[in-house]
Amino acid sequence: MTGMEKVAVVGGTGKLGAAIARRLAKAGREVIIGSRSAEAARKVADELGFGLRGLTNAAAAAAGEIVIVTVPFAAQEATLAEIAPHVAGKIVVDTTVPLVPPKVMRAQLPPEGSAAVRGQALLGEGVTMVSAFHNVAAHKLATDDDVGCDVLVFGDDKGARAKVVELTNEAGLRGLHGGALVNSAAAEALTSVLIFLNKTYGVDGAGIQITGKLREP
Amino acid sequence: MTGMEKVAVVGGTGKLGAAIARRLAKAGREVIIGSRSAEAARKVADELGFGLRGLTNAAAAAAGEIVIVTVPFAAQEATLAEIAPHVAGKIVVDTTVPLVPPKVMRAQLPPEGSAAVRGQALLGEGVTMVSAFHNVAAHKLATDDDVGCDVLVFGDDKGARAKVVELTNEAGLRGLHGGALVNSAAAEALTSVLIFLNKTYGVDGAGIQITGKLREP
Repeated sequence: MTGMEKVAVVGGTGKLGAAIARRLAKAGREVIIGSRSAEAARKVADELGFGLRGLTNAAAAAAGEIVIVTVPFAAQEATLAEIAPHVAGKIVVDTTVPLVPPKVMRAQLPPEGSAAVRGQALLGEGVTMVSAFHNVAAHKLATDDDVGCDVLVFGDDKGARAKVVELTNEAGLRGLHGGALVNSAAAEALTSVLIFLNKTYGVDGAGIQITGKLREP
Repeated sequence: MTGMEKVAVVGGTGKLGAAIARRLAKAGREVIIGSRSAEAARKVADELGFGLRGLTNAAAAAAGEIVIVTVPFAAQEATLAEIAPHVAGKIVVDTTVPLVPPKVMRAQLPPEGSAAVRGQALLGEGVTMVSAFHNVAAHKLATDDDVGCDVLVFGDDKGARAKVVELTNEAGLRGLHGGALVNSAAAEALTSVLIFLNKTYGVDGAGIQITGKLREP
């Protein structure tokens, strides 16, 4: 364990955010769900149980020591602006996949190269940016089942990355260091491939697993 | 089977090219190895056996009906220019990963978005571009062992993609339709992640597998 920092899940009333929050809270983490509406956040927190609390996104980000952002690409900029005053010096975990509807099966990385690098640019260097959870099917993560998907964790700060790998493990997933934040492009683009695989091969939530014999890092 | 088109492997004296050529020839395909030097190509073809022949890259591309290009990113442009007069109307399978030494563990996709899209732009619309084989460790592919890595196949022409999926199957791999050519960015960037994983976790050739129950497409 690398300490038990309080976790905020911004956009935590969405499918992915609620699933992450629930798994972490169930594992014993103190987790706060954030939403644009504090009332909606409290409602989802109460439904999920495990001691979860609900606040506005800004208040959740202020309370959390590690802040996980789980919003659609179209909401990334506004959401990061909302939490920016509250995350200086903290670890922000961006889960944004740059899907551009309606063509969500086409990889459409932003000009910055990835949503994670865009997020870092939006929040500035005072924030330690990590990205993760791009390839996990939210509806599987919402259960207690084995998700069958590794989580690649990206970030330029190795220590911050390790804390997020630890979070993925608490959530019952295998988290793996995936290298620098720029490498987030791989997992972000892969999500469009997985959506394509779901459609083409009739898969209920395709995922990825890294093969090969891995030693402890 | 989707027919037995003759396959040319341009840059086939390199590790990846030789490994692909050997597996396909062993499976009964007619395969020609191309190299800048016809003599070098013949030498490698003779060493590999299985009826492989060696020619210059241009002559191999002229003889092949499906042309697999296996050269480093730095050689992609010159190599495609070399074969361009000989591949009109054919399927060209680009395996290029845009690694930029010395920082090969950092995803550095080209301005076009991917090496595959860059390749299509270099060869023009008269060529049916497909990309594949980005994530397979060449030294594993050179053996008869199970490589333990799925091959994602990208391209805008579904029929051409299916022929390349068939080639990957002949080579003893599980090939999967990965969608449009732009999606090649995912597999190309992932190679840098795999190199990072090899170093960080002491893996001898990390790969990926798609998880979930896949039906026939």
